[in-house]
Amino acid sequence: MSKGQQTRERIIQLAAPIFNKHGYEGTALSDLMEATGLEKGGLYRHFASKQELAAEAFDFAWATAVRVRADGMDGSGNAVDRLKRMIQNFVEIRTGLVPGGCPLLNTAIDADDGNAVLRERVQKALDSWLERLAAIVKQGMKRGEIQKNADASEIAALIVSNLEGALMVSRVSRNRQAMEWAKLHLYGYLEQSVRAR
Amino acid sequence: MSKGQQTRERIIQLAAPIFNKHGYEGTALSDLMEATGLEKGGLYRHFASKQELAAEAFDFAWATAVRVRADGMDGSGNAVDRLKRMIQNFVEIRTGLVPGGCPLLNTAIDADDGNAVLRERVQKALDSWLERLAAIVKQGMKRGEIQKNADASEIAALIVSNLEGALMVSRVSRNRQAMEWAKLHLYGYLEQSVRAR
Repeated sequence: MSKGQQTRERIIQLAAPIFNKHGYEGTALSDLMEATGLEKGGLYRHFASKQELAAEAFDFAWATAVRVRADGMDGSGNAVDRLKRMIQNFVEIRTGLVPGGCPLLNTAIDADDGNAVLRERVQKALDSWLERLAAIVKQGMKRGEIQKNADASEIAALIVSNLEGALMVSRVSRNRQAMEWAKLHLYGYLEQSVRAR
Repeated sequence: MSKGQQTRERIIQLAAPIFNKHGYEGTALSDLMEATGLEKGGLYRHFASKQELAAEAFDFAWATAVRVRADGMDGSGNAVDRLKRMIQNFVEIRTGLVPGGCPLLNTAIDADDGNAVLRERVQKALDSWLERLAAIVKQGMKRGEIQKNADASEIAALIVSNLEGALMVSRVSRNRQAMEWAKLHLYGYLEQSVRAR
């Protein structure tokens, strides 16, 4: 990696928690300069715009979250158990993430209007999460671990909706109870309506 | 209502869609001046700060959403059916709201750090929504319409988490399917695990 690339990576890592905590609009150039110790010119030598830096920072924060949530999900385990493991990771693991909470939740609404670059990254992140979960369901159906008439896209969307919504409720109420309820609810749903009998 | 109060109300109504679409940080004073036709001095004659105007605008947008979502829920209907009606209203009614989508979802993350006035309003709005739903569940338990061992707070949190999370997924993917799935999932949950048998 060239020195320029190293600096670029370092800026992204330092900018990621700022954007994740304060949002795109809430992040001032001065915040980025303070976090990185660089002047405006130094920052813009590596990024064409604030939008580009925000998009790279989002990708970095999201990749970190994906890695944490996938912990223990590899391998050839039962599909339902792997879905439950991801849910457990989402609810219970709070270390190793970029500070500020789930990048998807933080950025989804922020990027909703007028920020095309960031919006595209957020949409791609959500799509790939949904596809990963749907792929596990489809594999489970092939292996006879999941009910034959299951809808992989629907199951994936229900899991993500439940978790992200519960995270929002938990953040607003400053109480993790909604996350625990979502976890237990999804476990029950997967056991009763998804797992093959 | 005095002329001053009328002007104040009009400013709140005109500011509400701006804040709801662009967020607190994304709303510039110039946007508010353009929407209301007032100069800075005119705006600050009625509100002590941008925070105060944003908080009033949120309350206005939220009150509108509450009214729309409560449509047809009054009266002495069966508790499970009233919960289903609220879910249906949330998913299906898209008119009569302040433009920009659900004020709670829009404002929850935005107000997360550093904006104490707005954060308090958002928390109050969420709490009152959860309490309204929990009260319906408790009434249903008393009347024998809902299972005796139900947890009213848990059921309320699951409904809100599902709906708000599905709304986020729908907004990011620009596809309403996740909302429809959440509705059907919650109907199934209420019929199978909540309604008294």
